[in-house]
Amino acid sequence: MHRQAAKTISKSDARSMPRKYFVSPDIFATEQKNIFSKNWLLVGHQSQIPRSGDFFLATVTGENLIVTRDQGSVIRAFFNVCRHRGTRVKEDACGHSSTIQCPYHAWTYGLDGKLIGAPHMDEVPGFDKADYSLHSANVGLWEGFIFVNLEHNPEPVENWFAALNGKFSHWNIPKLRPAKRIEYDVRANWKLMFENYSECYHCPGVHPQLQKVSPYDSAENDLREGPFLGGFMKINPGKSLTMSGNACASFVGKIENLQQVFYYSIFPNMLLSLHPEYVMVHQLLPQSPERTLIICDWLFHPDAFEGKDFNPEDAIEFWDITNRQDWHMCELSQEGISSRAYKPGPYSARESIPAAWDHYYLQQAG
Amino acid sequence: MHRQAAKTISKSDARSMPRKYFVSPDIFATEQKNIFSKNWLLVGHQSQIPRSGDFFLATVTGENLIVTRDQGSVIRAFFNVCRHRGTRVKEDACGHSSTIQCPYHAWTYGLDGKLIGAPHMDEVPGFDKADYSLHSANVGLWEGFIFVNLEHNPEPVENWFAALNGKFSHWNIPKLRPAKRIEYDVRANWKLMFENYSECYHCPGVHPQLQKVSPYDSAENDLREGPFLGGFMKINPGKSLTMSGNACASFVGKIENLQQVFYYSIFPNMLLSLHPEYVMVHQLLPQSPERTLIICDWLFHPDAFEGKDFNPEDAIEFWDITNRQDWHMCELSQEGISSRAYKPGPYSARESIPAAWDHYYLQQAG
Amino acid sequence: MHRQAAKTISKSDARSMPRKYFVSPDIFATEQKNIFSKNWLLVGHQSQIPRSGDFFLATVTGENLIVTRDQGSVIRAFFNVCRHRGTRVKEDACGHSSTIQCPYHAWTYGLDGKLIGAPHMDEVPGFDKADYSLHSANVGLWEGFIFVNLEHNPEPVENWFAALNGKFSHWNIPKLRPAKRIEYDVRANWKLMFENYSECYHCPGVHPQLQKVSPYDSAENDLREGPFLGGFMKINPGKSLTMSGNACASFVGKIENLQQVFYYSIFPNMLLSLHPEYVMVHQLLPQSPERTLIICDWLFHPDAFEGKDFNPEDAIEFWDITNRQDWHMCELSQEGISSRAYKPGPYSARESIPAAWDHYYLQQAG
Repeated sequence: MHRQAAKTISKSDARSMPRKYFVSPDIFATEQKNIFSKNWLLVGHQSQIPRSGDFFLATVTGENLIVTRDQGSVIRAFFNVCRHRGTRVKEDACGHSSTIQCPYHAWTYGLDGKLIGAPHMDEVPGFDKADYSLHSANVGLWEGFIFVNLEHNPEPVENWFAALNGKFSHWNIPKLRPAKRIEYDVRANWKLMFENYSECYHCPGVHPQLQKVSPYDSAENDLREGPFLGGFMKINPGKSLTMSGNACASFVGKIENLQQVFYYSIFPNMLLSLHPEYVMVHQLLPQSPERTLIICDWLFHPDAFEGKDFNPEDAIEFWDITNRQDWHMCELSQEGISSRAYKPGPYSARESIPAAWDHYYLQQAG
Repeated sequence: MHRQAAKTISKSDARSMPRKYFVSPDIFATEQKNIFSKNWLLVGHQSQIPRSGDFFLATVTGENLIVTRDQGSVIRAFFNVCRHRGTRVKEDACGHSSTIQCPYHAWTYGLDGKLIGAPHMDEVPGFDKADYSLHSANVGLWEGFIFVNLEHNPEPVENWFAALNGKFSHWNIPKLRPAKRIEYDVRANWKLMFENYSECYHCPGVHPQLQKVSPYDSAENDLREGPFLGGFMKINPGKSLTMSGNACASFVGKIENLQQVFYYSIFPNMLLSLHPEYVMVHQLLPQSPERTLIICDWLFHPDAFEGKDFNPEDAIEFWDITNRQDWHMCELSQEGISSRAYKPGPYSARESIPAAWDHYYLQQAG
Repeated sequence: MHRQAAKTISKSDARSMPRKYFVSPDIFATEQKNIFSKNWLLVGHQSQIPRSGDFFLATVTGENLIVTRDQGSVIRAFFNVCRHRGTRVKEDACGHSSTIQCPYHAWTYGLDGKLIGAPHMDEVPGFDKADYSLHSANVGLWEGFIFVNLEHNPEPVENWFAALNGKFSHWNIPKLRPAKRIEYDVRANWKLMFENYSECYHCPGVHPQLQKVSPYDSAENDLREGPFLGGFMKINPGKSLTMSGNACASFVGKIENLQQVFYYSIFPNMLLSLHPEYVMVHQLLPQSPERTLIICDWLFHPDAFEGKDFNPEDAIEFWDITNRQDWHMCELSQEGISSRAYKPGPYSARESIPAAWDHYYLQQAG
């Protein structure tokens, strides 16, 4: 603990980052290369593809990937690029098929990416199917979430998440199933959403509904530096983060304290929010310095779907409203930061996690 | 007078400007820096914010400004950027409020821009509210029009407009009130609108309505070089520049000659058109080399609004049609000038004011 | 023949082109300069402007041209740029007028491009109308098609097309008349459409209708290298390339073999498809590395229009469906090729014409 405290950033000096980090196309390109092409990126949850042959498409750092479960039930990811003339082999956002066939000239691949059919190519001297498997991307699983990594030889996903080992076991995340997905197209730099998620200093003015059930100054952080940051906030007794204020489903597991909601940011593209009866997860997909696509999923325990009091919309609507309030603030910040008058401003003591996030980011941006 | 005549550009040599001035992003950036960030720019009229706390937002050269009247009735302009994390503090295009509060973390500023509230910042050692006033922009008033200047220490507005001192006093411009605003999004370089405004050689073919009440060859210019250019044209006896051809309001003041309409261009973003019964003013807001936003206001005497024959739409429709005819020609010019075949062409003797405008512009573009 | 065979590209080595040729703005700019500003470009057919004074506008490589027939019935092309201040002189996409008058200041040109009227310019010392003709572009005719060439002193059109002399005389192309034009806005590099047009390896999967009347493996190519490439494919006995499968018009000429459809690509912007009863022609107009405008015309014999069995929609619908199937594959290829995972892949023996097209293109791209 002593060592950790020594490394902690001096909070009284912390300031928001310079303008260039939010508007520069060069810095955006560097981030795509040094951060998004080297780290483990969230693309979904294993419950989206339960059977062999199930697949979905994911786009990270400009690359469209086919994420599928092969005949051996192993989850794999392939670049959506035919080895013949480069055509996208899959168009549907998700589905099921026993092989992967290119629509242009009917080259056909197995679920393991191996080329198994290529009409007329036997007429080409020296052509060998074994040379033309689909290009693959690294896949990792953590708590049932699917991550990809575009680097050639990345750190194993288990090592990367070692610090979080067992931390979330009560929530049974690998077992959960999605009830809803909402996509948001936000006109703001992706880092503004991380900073926004990492503090509740803004809650009194921005989130009147949230404010009623969870006090803005109740945050207790247990991860205060590095790629994983966050902790919990209190939920008022007997309340839940839903429109009605009541729990909307049976609990996801044996939750010790029902008066806590946990918020963690997972560098560089995941926000994980753990409630007693549901888990909400955000995927951040930067599109340009000034635009980010955000995919938000709500996951519940499989048994909850059968419960007579199951009312997921009660939570979804609550967070959809809250999300939109946040994105709006991020968009206003993007506009203001673009001004020549903007200068980094002082973080308050309530913004130590955004400051820690910035600190880690600046180390990685290189 | 002799010296002035000597400096006048030889009209027989005058030609339209080279293509690069109309299409180059580099020249556009230089203009934004050397012209629009150094000169006094029209943003509105004092009648838009009569009371303390009234405000409107204005965007010049990419900067969003809050233009407001403070407790001492002084008009001020602030960059719309919170000193905390850069968020836009004001969103509504106009309104009234006794303080300026950021919606994100509730930092609050007085109408003089001073930070008066910042929750929890007293917990930050060394934080002093006095260090975090809103950044201000210079404000100047001329004839009741509000101008801003983004330069650090600009020429006083009184000096800049000294040459026009008293010239327009008959029109009572500071007292006038707007009846209507129309915004135009024009796909043409801003300089084409200045050139278009500065000659009536185009009127016979482009403006059949205008041609009926004001002869195209009646121009008499009294400002023939420098940043302010123009003069008057004749109005046919008993006629007015309205759809009906009749005056649409009581006169704005003791106008000496009812058969004259005055047209002046005020470098770099104002066109001022003075009629016996109304004043029309255009604000030009360059958005890119090939796109300009134009805001047009029609101002009348406050007493006119009560007149039983008050019919401002009669003038507004007349000029809205005429404006659109002009913008269309400017757009056709933009398209043609973009061609590799375009070469500067000869100005006629009727285009001495566009030639003088180009001459002054080229000196400023640097 | 021996020499020709020696120069032929070794098919077993042929691969699709590297990514940069499909996505690089620099290469696109170079193509516009080295290919589209130097070659003869298809802009239409002489039947579009049968009378003196008829005109249409064409845009090639960013340049808008007025293509018109002068008083002597000669087809001419002028840059659509007034010599006064650069304004576009013609706005309508096509029409008829005995002179060319600029809408801005009424400068007027004859159909030969000579300035014949310029109000008030006689007041300008030294002004001579003879110095201000519209800038012209080179025009060439081949088989009744109108081509333009923006180079100063291009190879005569007759020389360029010498290799095709008389080859298509049976189709009476100069006499044909258009029945329909469809414009397609395709999100793909222009070269993908040439490659797509040049092989039927994709037909079984992509074109089920076409597949029924014309076997995909029946291609016999007679032009196998250089700027003109292609040959014929078989039509099943008694069939036609129409929705109904029946001929939709009387034949365009004395066609020797009714069971053949001829497909030729004419570098760099024309695709020519010759059927017994109609001719289809595509104009390709590259807009950016990733976008191409395609204009498709269907031409029939003038006598066919009077025939009681004349049903051009039967052919147009057939090809409109087939065109859209092709463009969709091109768009999927554009997306896939943009990936970092894309590498040039091996052409099959059925793709010798795409390989030859690429070979000629790479020589020209410089």
